Amino acid sequence: MNLLLKNIAKHVTLTEQEEERVLLLTELQTFKAKTILLKEGDICTQSYFVIKGILRSYTRDENAVEHVVNFACAEWWMADMYSYLSQRPGQLFIEVNEDAEVIVLTRENQEKLYSEVPKLERFFRILIENSLIANQRRLINNLTFTAEARYDLFTKKFHSILPYLPQKQIASYIGVTPEFFSRMKARLLKK
Amino acid sequence: MNLLLKNIAKHVTLTEQEEERVLLLTELQTFKAKTILLKEGDICTQSYFVIKGILRSYTRDENAVEHVVNFACAEWWMADMYSYLSQRPGQLFIEVNEDAEVIVLTRENQEKLYSEVPKLERFFRILIENSLIANQRRLINNLTFTAEARYDLFTKKFHSILPYLPQKQIASYIGVTPEFFSRMKARLLKK
Repeated sequence: MNLLLKNIAKHVTLTEQEEERVLLLTELQTFKAKTILLKEGDICTQSYFVIKGILRSYTRDENAVEHVVNFACAEWWMADMYSYLSQRPGQLFIEVNEDAEVIVLTRENQEKLYSEVPKLERFFRILIENSLIANQRRLINNLTFTAEARYDLFTKKFHSILPYLPQKQIASYIGVTPEFFSRMKARLLKK
Repeated sequence: MNLLLKNIAKHVTLTEQEEERVLLLTELQTFKAKTILLKEGDICTQSYFVIKGILRSYTRDENAVEHVVNFACAEWWMADMYSYLSQRPGQLFIEVNEDAEVIVLTRENQEKLYSEVPKLERFFRILIENSLIANQRRLINNLTFTAEARYDLFTKKFHSILPYLPQKQIASYIGVTPEFFSRMKARLLKK
């Protein structure tokens, strides 16, 4: 079964005709590693549902240092939600980490789906809720957890793609320098 | 006009009967400063729409140090969204900072409103989207902005309630120690 329909079926039940509309209004695309899908300052007009491969979102500070915001692997959604929802220029880059197969849903087609298949309003509300939950937890963890505890959570959350992620990107997601990160990992191995 | 109905009217248009249902399924309550509305580990079963006064949400780390997550003043909503949406024990405390008048919406009544006034599904989706947008910006700002830039954003966002907020709570929201915060403010005054 199509992974996207499986993802939707977790939350709402569609008829065959409704599933057909979803398939018609989304598009499977493949991207090579290092492809930039979105740049800072662009307006995010589409969201991505990953079938295969890995996407990464990040932002750059005034010294052009990259800060990883998130990774997305199979069956995860990714977009600059701020820009996608507000339709204002975003702060995020989205880049392909590993060759990827991705289902692309444009905002325009999402609006069409809302009116043609109103049940999907519920589905996307739940997606956004889950995204909000993840964001709030991340914010609180950054405020209250040590780097070691944040790394521990990271390895659990991204268990399946851990071997594919460069160490400096993991360090960035956790919010430590690559040097601190390798010292920390050495310390953890000794325990 | 009732502030809650005004808030809803920004996004969806209700009939008089629908407005009556909203008023019937929400309740105005008053709380004294320092009242704890929600404790860490509790399940958040209601959300709060502030009419007057200030609420504050925070979390505590393993050393019982408080980290301010957010403030809410008039016409803002507050809840532990993670717990409210997932109905699992939350990580947040919600406390009354300044004597408050608050409209309380229980999750049960929110579900009733969804079925009786389906338009509100759209309203709450937009609320959650806005909350997600704010969270994402905060996360990115914490990753990329200096403490001074974060303070600058804070004074803009919380302009109207700034005189009422204790310095140590502002420092905590920005993510610096009270000592660093007072040195930083002294430096900014000299500029």
